Amino acid sequence: MTDHHDIKLGLQDSTEVLHRISSRLSARYSGIFAAETVERYVFESYTALARTAKVTAYLPATTEHFANDRLHALATSKGAIASEVPEVLFVCVQNAGRSQMAAALLNAEAQGRIHVRSAGSMPASALDPAVVTAMAEIGLDLSADYPKPLTDDVVRASDVVITMGCGDSCPIYPGKRYEDWELTDPADQSLETVRSIRDEIHDRIRILVTSLLNKEEPTP
Amino acid sequence: MTDHHDIKLGLQDSTEVLHRISSRLSARYSGIFAAETVERYVFESYTALARTAKVTAYLPATTEHFANDRLHALATSKGAIASEVPEVLFVCVQNAGRSQMAAALLNAEAQGRIHVRSAGSMPASALDPAVVTAMAEIGLDLSADYPKPLTDDVVRASDVVITMGCGDSCPIYPGKRYEDWELTDPADQSLETVRSIRDEIHDRIRILVTSLLNKEEPTP
Repeated sequence: MTDHHDIKLGLQDSTEVLHRISSRLSARYSGIFAAETVERYVFESYTALARTAKVTAYLPATTEHFANDRLHALATSKGAIASEVPEVLFVCVQNAGRSQMAAALLNAEAQGRIHVRSAGSMPASALDPAVVTAMAEIGLDLSADYPKPLTDDVVRASDVVITMGCGDSCPIYPGKRYEDWELTDPADQSLETVRSIRDEIHDRIRILVTSLLNKEEPTP
Repeated sequence: MTDHHDIKLGLQDSTEVLHRISSRLSARYSGIFAAETVERYVFESYTALARTAKVTAYLPATTEHFANDRLHALATSKGAIASEVPEVLFVCVQNAGRSQMAAALLNAEAQGRIHVRSAGSMPASALDPAVVTAMAEIGLDLSADYPKPLTDDVVRASDVVITMGCGDSCPIYPGKRYEDWELTDPADQSLETVRSIRDEIHDRIRILVTSLLNKEEPTP
């Protein structure tokens, strides 16, 4: 006997909400991507996030955000959307700590003059709570952020790819600037240690901003 | 100072080999998928496998295999390729043990009368060696198999989805038969335990084959 009557799966049928997301994004990328391509991105993004997400209540919202970001990246790399600022991608293993802090700090420092993304080679189910706390202490709210798997589209759209402990798992394309930052992994560390990792990342981010925006080094 | 001169990334630029794979698959799916769609599948499949693969030497081969399987699934669910046999998908967490054994056993028992796939919600870097050994003992060679992430296309193409310890992470579509099999995880178990898990899966597979092919239960 098979036991398909007993199954209790946690996810509901999300087809309807995913079709609505697909319609909205199809309208936004009309003339750039076929509706079928957009739908593929939405459904694959949903499945990729659902594999590792802990809180499935947020999945529709994160799916729309993630699919939109990937489509935007793809449109940028095709030249269908002009990118007028440098595009930077941070990649760590879990996209739960280091790469999330780096992305938030670069966003804060660059003030729209750099486009920032982050991803993980083996995304965790949620951000590290100590990381969220340490970032809140300096006024940056990561509570709505979520770990995302590394995808080809975001690598392709980037001018600069900065890996943190997962260099091997990031595709290499010619013509991009690659860096590998050696940083302590904040996973399971005390809040105090996380704060010092945050500050080390912040120092590197300030140097990166200067380097990308071709400004003089700030005087200390 | 940034340290982009010191970077030693494990992956080489694989763009050329991925373009060759894209050309071959574009020819195979000509009239079904645009070349651009095929190329997206190839590059995203590569990145998804590269995230978790341990041995990167096999990546081009596994990428071609995985992308082909996904495109075939997508073509089947679109009705562009007729599926004349039931399509079964096994999903476990790592796609390194249970779902791989189930797929190999179903392939062996069904003899082409059922189309079989497997995937993992958090794919491991390689198959469990004890699993490969236990399967070799009954004449089934898993040495060329590899853990693959669960994707929407293979769920969509399936008539039957059987989860093993990862029910929550599998998208639910109406009209499919879902089962959840409770099985011991073979990870880090002795060869003897793995053999007993293998045999338990084998028993379930025989019942599944009978049920899918509408035959009488075999007399013991």
